[in-house]
Amino acid sequence: MIYFDTDYMEGAHPKLMQRLMETNLEHTVGYGCDAYTAHAKELVRQICGDPDLDVTFIVGGTQTNATVIDALLSRHEGVLACETAHINVHEAGAIEHSGHKILTLPAHDGKVDADELREYIAQFYADDTYEHMVAPGMLYITYPTEYGTLYSRCELERLHEVCSQAGIPLYIDGARLGYGLASPVCDITFSDLPKLCDVFYIGGAKVGALFGEAVVARKGLLKHFFPVVKQHGGLLSKGRLLGIQFETLFTDNLYLDIARHAVELAIKLKEGFIAAGYRPFIDSLTNQQFFTLPNQLMDNLRKDFSFENWGPRGETHTTVRFVTSWATEPSDVSALIQAVQAFPAVEK
Amino acid sequence: MIYFDTDYMEGAHPKLMQRLMETNLEHTVGYGCDAYTAHAKELVRQICGDPDLDVTFIVGGTQTNATVIDALLSRHEGVLACETAHINVHEAGAIEHSGHKILTLPAHDGKVDADELREYIAQFYADDTYEHMVAPGMLYITYPTEYGTLYSRCELERLHEVCSQAGIPLYIDGARLGYGLASPVCDITFSDLPKLCDVFYIGGAKVGALFGEAVVARKGLLKHFFPVVKQHGGLLSKGRLLGIQFETLFTDNLYLDIARHAVELAIKLKEGFIAAGYRPFIDSLTNQQFFTLPNQLMDNLRKDFSFENWGPRGETHTTVRFVTSWATEPSDVSALIQAVQAFPAVEK
Amino acid sequence: MIYFDTDYMEGAHPKLMQRLMETNLEHTVGYGCDAYTAHAKELVRQICGDPDLDVTFIVGGTQTNATVIDALLSRHEGVLACETAHINVHEAGAIEHSGHKILTLPAHDGKVDADELREYIAQFYADDTYEHMVAPGMLYITYPTEYGTLYSRCELERLHEVCSQAGIPLYIDGARLGYGLASPVCDITFSDLPKLCDVFYIGGAKVGALFGEAVVARKGLLKHFFPVVKQHGGLLSKGRLLGIQFETLFTDNLYLDIARHAVELAIKLKEGFIAAGYRPFIDSLTNQQFFTLPNQLMDNLRKDFSFENWGPRGETHTTVRFVTSWATEPSDVSALIQAVQAFPAVEK
Amino acid sequence: MIYFDTDYMEGAHPKLMQRLMETNLEHTVGYGCDAYTAHAKELVRQICGDPDLDVTFIVGGTQTNATVIDALLSRHEGVLACETAHINVHEAGAIEHSGHKILTLPAHDGKVDADELREYIAQFYADDTYEHMVAPGMLYITYPTEYGTLYSRCELERLHEVCSQAGIPLYIDGARLGYGLASPVCDITFSDLPKLCDVFYIGGAKVGALFGEAVVARKGLLKHFFPVVKQHGGLLSKGRLLGIQFETLFTDNLYLDIARHAVELAIKLKEGFIAAGYRPFIDSLTNQQFFTLPNQLMDNLRKDFSFENWGPRGETHTTVRFVTSWATEPSDVSALIQAVQAFPAVEK
Repeated sequence: MIYFDTDYMEGAHPKLMQRLMETNLEHTVGYGCDAYTAHAKELVRQICGDPDLDVTFIVGGTQTNATVIDALLSRHEGVLACETAHINVHEAGAIEHSGHKILTLPAHDGKVDADELREYIAQFYADDTYEHMVAPGMLYITYPTEYGTLYSRCELERLHEVCSQAGIPLYIDGARLGYGLASPVCDITFSDLPKLCDVFYIGGAKVGALFGEAVVARKGLLKHFFPVVKQHGGLLSKGRLLGIQFETLFTDNLYLDIARHAVELAIKLKEGFIAAGYRPFIDSLTNQQFFTLPNQLMDNLRKDFSFENWGPRGETHTTVRFVTSWATEPSDVSALIQAVQAFPAVEK
Repeated sequence: MIYFDTDYMEGAHPKLMQRLMETNLEHTVGYGCDAYTAHAKELVRQICGDPDLDVTFIVGGTQTNATVIDALLSRHEGVLACETAHINVHEAGAIEHSGHKILTLPAHDGKVDADELREYIAQFYADDTYEHMVAPGMLYITYPTEYGTLYSRCELERLHEVCSQAGIPLYIDGARLGYGLASPVCDITFSDLPKLCDVFYIGGAKVGALFGEAVVARKGLLKHFFPVVKQHGGLLSKGRLLGIQFETLFTDNLYLDIARHAVELAIKLKEGFIAAGYRPFIDSLTNQQFFTLPNQLMDNLRKDFSFENWGPRGETHTTVRFVTSWATEPSDVSALIQAVQAFPAVEK
Repeated sequence: MIYFDTDYMEGAHPKLMQRLMETNLEHTVGYGCDAYTAHAKELVRQICGDPDLDVTFIVGGTQTNATVIDALLSRHEGVLACETAHINVHEAGAIEHSGHKILTLPAHDGKVDADELREYIAQFYADDTYEHMVAPGMLYITYPTEYGTLYSRCELERLHEVCSQAGIPLYIDGARLGYGLASPVCDITFSDLPKLCDVFYIGGAKVGALFGEAVVARKGLLKHFFPVVKQHGGLLSKGRLLGIQFETLFTDNLYLDIARHAVELAIKLKEGFIAAGYRPFIDSLTNQQFFTLPNQLMDNLRKDFSFENWGPRGETHTTVRFVTSWATEPSDVSALIQAVQAFPAVEK
Repeated sequence: MIYFDTDYMEGAHPKLMQRLMETNLEHTVGYGCDAYTAHAKELVRQICGDPDLDVTFIVGGTQTNATVIDALLSRHEGVLACETAHINVHEAGAIEHSGHKILTLPAHDGKVDADELREYIAQFYADDTYEHMVAPGMLYITYPTEYGTLYSRCELERLHEVCSQAGIPLYIDGARLGYGLASPVCDITFSDLPKLCDVFYIGGAKVGALFGEAVVARKGLLKHFFPVVKQHGGLLSKGRLLGIQFETLFTDNLYLDIARHAVELAIKLKEGFIAAGYRPFIDSLTNQQFFTLPNQLMDNLRKDFSFENWGPRGETHTTVRFVTSWATEPSDVSALIQAVQAFPAVEK
């Protein structure tokens, strides 16, 4: 069986495991106050090109979202996000559990439109009854989105401009950030991010770590963040585990190398499907690829390949997702393409 | 420098690291639905002697407490705990963040007294205005306590009896459970626990794991627990990391071996202090030892040893804590005893 | 100036004020444990035709919604409601403040469609990842809706059937319930409501009371509701004020008489607009009427009449709302119609 | 039967009822944006001697506490209060429902001691682990306390000084404020309060109103308070009901006249008990009086008088409470004294 289900099916990239082994017997203080964590934060600040950024490592992604959003919003505010946003769909109500409403905007292949955002905020304050409604207090977006799509630099600038004019922070959920930055169509870098938003997180768990996300914030933005993280259950006693992993990810470009490897294979995979006559369900150039396949092909592929079902399209077709990671081998992709091409699309 | 600060200063016990390495490249489904996790749950059920128990692995301890308590309480209920309970002091308000009041009872060396518990509940319902107050909805205790002390079997039975009569569950926070079960004065075993309480957790992070706690509950007690864990941010995408670690801890008695090693060294340490004329601050027979030392001795020890300060006692003395773990060497303890005995108590 | 802004611009219906005056100097116990409140509950049970219903009086509408929803939902559940539902728009996030997500359905003139509801629930449980999402835990609807529209008996039966099959309660927000029951197109009565839903509230503040809402629930559905109401700040110390008002409203048919008076005037008003060539924005036969008027007419009317602006329709028109109540005089409506007919629609 | 149970057993003071009747048919905008409310706010500012104060009327006391505390605290902060504080005992967990921990201090006849407060804060920040604990974010006190006792001006100044030095606001719950200010031992006035604390509320429901509390805050302290009040369910649609009542209470000194009447009768009552040989349980000079009586006397009195039981003192005695209000007649007190003196204390 060859696996394309998702990018968190294995342990960690071998280099991270090696460093965890090498340091295993060392004694350090807990809760991320150790030297590994300090160094990892420094490396994150360096790659982001700003020595003043606040960096915090948190165990999980849902936890990171719940904690950052809770730290940023006032009581009367909610978080703007598009309908398909992870926080709105797949976090089991973690945001609302902290008392905050998600204010939804239309999703365009997983993306928020800056004009619609501006209009939402304008209409909110134009409404005489706005003090009876939840005020837009921040914007949440994902990069890449849940559909593997990317905002262009220009789109991010426009979103950030609307947010700045409204006086609300822009937060980027980068659970798969690496796969965005490594995409051939990406026109931003790590060091652009602190200028394009107010706070973002660099996903570790889906890009080679056992677990862990790095929250990067404008200095002073996340007030009293340590106890807020603790309150949300996101403080790891053996905090250095996060530090050691991120230190390794940001040494010798490992983070982006992992991402590039996965994206290249994903694009190869995509091209193979297209060559066989299958058009992508959504046009992604990151490590997630979506296709609507005839059920017969899907069933055939399932004998040797594992991948996720994203729901039926009528009686005869199904949308499915293929995901690559550091652990995907070129031969895995070749085998899949071969299997697909043995069953070319009749529409071809 | 020799470290006695706490039991979470290192990585994981080497056997756990070895298993994480061996399995690192395998592909498994996420969120704890893998075979390692299933097997680890089975091993936990076996050692607890009840094939019907619900077992859930959660990343962190504060998270585990917040999630279990949130899952057990109704809106109008609070959790009973003694003043010194971890949830009341050192969890940054995580319980209240979920909307629940902690109803405090007096602490007796970290323990709740069954008579005081019974009296609290009786007085509550005797009060005409009780519907204006937060109802006692469950009891939280720690085993061992924050002071290294232990409840006897009889004490646990009496607490459980009071809870049962009141119709409320008894929950045991076993962050350091192993060190309790491995204590020479412990008169209970793993298989007693499901009869002595309704839900408990087996601490991993402080007993040899990188992280992770195993919640063990009476079948059906924790309803819809999966989404509640997710909502609290406690669901690990690479859930097998918890499964593999607990599988290893519960293979060949590793969990209790680790605990026994630490407890034996802690008792040796304690006896060394007593021999030098220092009486324990609290009489513990687990892996935490507390002494009130002259500041001069404390300062002397600090040159070679690292340990926690638990607060001044007047101008000249300070209470300190020494903790052992799987990573403590017998020679570490010998060196400490030697240093203490070079400075015997004048009161001796 | 003649007022059509809303139905809560005056004090209480004179009969309620009279009873409050008559009883003002009497001494009663607090928190709704008095005889007036007991009698009022009895009257509510009588008109609803079921002696076993649980009746609770709460001060305000938002509070009532937040409290009932909080009492009904488990942690992992959210409340289904249509996009335009009061709880989703105009309650300042009170539902989310209690930790619950609102799961939105499309709104059809303010109404939920039973087929869409069924489909939502079916798709939810068909999704492999449903345990990562907020489960539908109850349905919230308004009767009449925020747009003055009404569900037919058949529509209510179908909604209730879908809810029952899904095992979730149906809750009707009756902030303006009287105006629904008094509508000429209404095909249900008070005594149908306990069979058509699991819990509903009879709005007082908008139907002649100073304040107050009566929650009517299937016996035992709202567990420990007294302390939950208190926790939500909805328990009035001088609780009899609610009892006395509802006792009066449900004596000699006052509640429905008030509503009938307002609905008749609203329909007369509507017919007057139609006669002048203006078509309703939404077809309501309750006490709220919506029209999209030329801005010139709107500005003209504003000289003598007060009413709410519901937002611009293009450059030249605006949607506005006219609301009647017990305090609206027939002459008020005549004056308005006369003013409108002096400015007939050119489209006529 | 003569009633001394509490000060909220009747409707409103007749002057308030009269004004509610006089204004009943007037039309005003909702939610407290009317002219009556504006005028009432102005009167409150005047009596408090500061034209810049923010005044907000809220329906109920528990709601007021929950809302003010929620508006003042950051996520990582809790509210300091003494063990016997109303918020800690009799608000059904409303504060925790909003996510905040109550940090308890010892109670001295219902009062917080400034030195103990200072010491608590000092010890908190001296603790190395303070970021794992809930930070003291504000102080809550009651004036008068739940036991009818009063802080002296000097005590309030010292509490305020400690708070100011710690950078946290001092909030006074004045549910019975009038009865404090009207006490012969009171050494402060309304106009001192804005200097002695940061925010306080003037209780209406217990001092002659049907319901309602007036929150008085340093300008700008309670940010975005309108939507926060709405979110907590404390916004009354017919908001003018609060305005009209407070306008009347603060016209011609009615508020303090009501309080003075009640306090004078309470002191007369107290002196009667003392003359009969009964010593007060707590030495109060406000409208609440506490005595520990022989059960035989208590049972005798119950035939003609109604009052609250505050719990048994041994087998033979019970502590009881007598409360006076605007509705208490001098003859009620004379009758009670007569009944008591017919049964003089043997200890006399």
